Amino acid sequence: MSESKTSGEMSIIDTYFAPLAEGSLGAVDLKDDAGYLEVPEGCSLALTTDAIVEGIHFLAGTAPHDIAYKALAVNVSDLCAKGADPTAYLLTIALPQSVDSQFLEGVQSGLSAAQAEYGCSLLGGDTIRTDGPVLIAITLAGVVQIEKKVHRAGAKPGDLVYVTGTIGDAALGLSLCRGEGTETRDVLNDKQTAHLKQRYLRPNARLEAISLVRDFATASMDISDGLVGDLEKLAAASGVGAALNSTGIPLSDAATLWLAAKPETIESILTGGDDYEVMMTVPAADEDTFLFAAKQTKLDVTRIGHVTPHKTGVQVFGNDGELLKLMRTSYDHF
Amino acid sequence: MSESKTSGEMSIIDTYFAPLAEGSLGAVDLKDDAGYLEVPEGCSLALTTDAIVEGIHFLAGTAPHDIAYKALAVNVSDLCAKGADPTAYLLTIALPQSVDSQFLEGVQSGLSAAQAEYGCSLLGGDTIRTDGPVLIAITLAGVVQIEKKVHRAGAKPGDLVYVTGTIGDAALGLSLCRGEGTETRDVLNDKQTAHLKQRYLRPNARLEAISLVRDFATASMDISDGLVGDLEKLAAASGVGAALNSTGIPLSDAATLWLAAKPETIESILTGGDDYEVMMTVPAADEDTFLFAAKQTKLDVTRIGHVTPHKTGVQVFGNDGELLKLMRTSYDHF
Repeated sequence: MSESKTSGEMSIIDTYFAPLAEGSLGAVDLKDDAGYLEVPEGCSLALTTDAIVEGIHFLAGTAPHDIAYKALAVNVSDLCAKGADPTAYLLTIALPQSVDSQFLEGVQSGLSAAQAEYGCSLLGGDTIRTDGPVLIAITLAGVVQIEKKVHRAGAKPGDLVYVTGTIGDAALGLSLCRGEGTETRDVLNDKQTAHLKQRYLRPNARLEAISLVRDFATASMDISDGLVGDLEKLAAASGVGAALNSTGIPLSDAATLWLAAKPETIESILTGGDDYEVMMTVPAADEDTFLFAAKQTKLDVTRIGHVTPHKTGVQVFGNDGELLKLMRTSYDHF
Repeated sequence: MSESKTSGEMSIIDTYFAPLAEGSLGAVDLKDDAGYLEVPEGCSLALTTDAIVEGIHFLAGTAPHDIAYKALAVNVSDLCAKGADPTAYLLTIALPQSVDSQFLEGVQSGLSAAQAEYGCSLLGGDTIRTDGPVLIAITLAGVVQIEKKVHRAGAKPGDLVYVTGTIGDAALGLSLCRGEGTETRDVLNDKQTAHLKQRYLRPNARLEAISLVRDFATASMDISDGLVGDLEKLAAASGVGAALNSTGIPLSDAATLWLAAKPETIESILTGGDDYEVMMTVPAADEDTFLFAAKQTKLDVTRIGHVTPHKTGVQVFGNDGELLKLMRTSYDHF
């Protein structure tokens, strides 16, 4: 309750969030009941929403800049996997009484950096008080030509399974942020340790994948809950199975060294989540042109398996072609 | 973390939320990274987001059906004030470990009732775990012809200020839900008491106002934080002032009786918030046709004041034309 006309919520919006809406005509300076988007003819609007909560999705003490950057990046990652160009987002932020201006400045700078990186701007939002932990929920809108929409369903037996970038870094980085992974001290140098942590704290959504998805993918999704579990979801949606070659998974130098020192790390790499890489299935006949196009984008893509007719889900093969048994296939906060 | 392929989050989505997306092609059964909206040619997409938190926006112990209904209704109310037809929404729900299936069933039935009432369906969402209170954030999309968009800015001196329905019921209802307002025991009968509580717990967004806003309003917003404070926001956005006649505010029978018994109640009525009525400014020359159109919609509209050239904000006049001094002009959770 406020005695003045400049209410607490209004003043937070004016100070920290209105600058993020600058240049966005449809945002009406964040001073209206709604923001507006015009969608080009022949295009569909793709809408995705992802929220993060302190203590669940990020560790207490994480820099607010990183929290906010990641909150937007994980939504961008969803759209990249759908072949949609991100355009504008709505922000819901729940703040406990304890947050100060330093926290809000960090949130602003993190969102600002992510906006610049991903080419979108703030369209609207809601700033609310909570007695609980900080929560940031973002709804991101993007644009894709109607005939280029790509779903999780659509993978066909014989299609090749490709992923962007490297897998497992974020799961290993999370271990390090938690103070675990002491066995790596003799194996990784400081730069490699920092690389893994950074991959967890500041994921990069793969904008370069958008055109590849549009032009080549029969099915696609982003890898957020663990490679194997997410491939299971894609296979289930498509009514197919998949064979995954665990030795072909693209790894960073740091992950390679860690895995060599402790082979059971493969489980975290395959199922740990937070990768925010794009997984897509590509018809075998298109592989050459796909790889040529990928080279133009300067995005690393790696074939990790293929789609099978079996509806029995995903089979993961190890070093000697043996079937791997995983304790779990994905990460679930529930 | 889950041992099985049917993760906790997935099973909640399948059981409680997927039915809310039935019939919505763009929702892809809630089994994709994004939902899709096609926007008719010549139309703009209006996007709004409003979140509610247990203990802040609703009292602990409120029926989950009512919580969820209201969560969607308050977003619909925003779009009604923009002349936009609601079409689809995304739902973020943060759940503490303590919620059970009864709670989730209530949420589903509340959303289902609101969807049916307001003609929209679930397009996507995110179900997350929290160590804090329940939080529901909804982003609602609606469609409006580009040339019919109505903002908060646009009110001109001389325009008449109209509101739909009755004002103040929800603020009084909240008092009753909190066990306050004992002075009303001899004044209100059970039906009147129930009416006020219901207006707080189950607001009705004014779909009927959409066509009036589109066709007549120079500026419009929904009244959610208190009539006077919200009129101040509209006036500020438009660069004008307004004169409000407090004796002309439309009141329900229950509010009229309460006010007669306790005249200081006028403060709660004018500034208490949670009304979810639509306020709009209408050119004086259009008043007759506006009132004729309003009659067709069967929606009660009442003139409560007029727009002035003064940029000094909103002046509220009392019984004898005297200027009222209010302790505060709107409700702010911060």
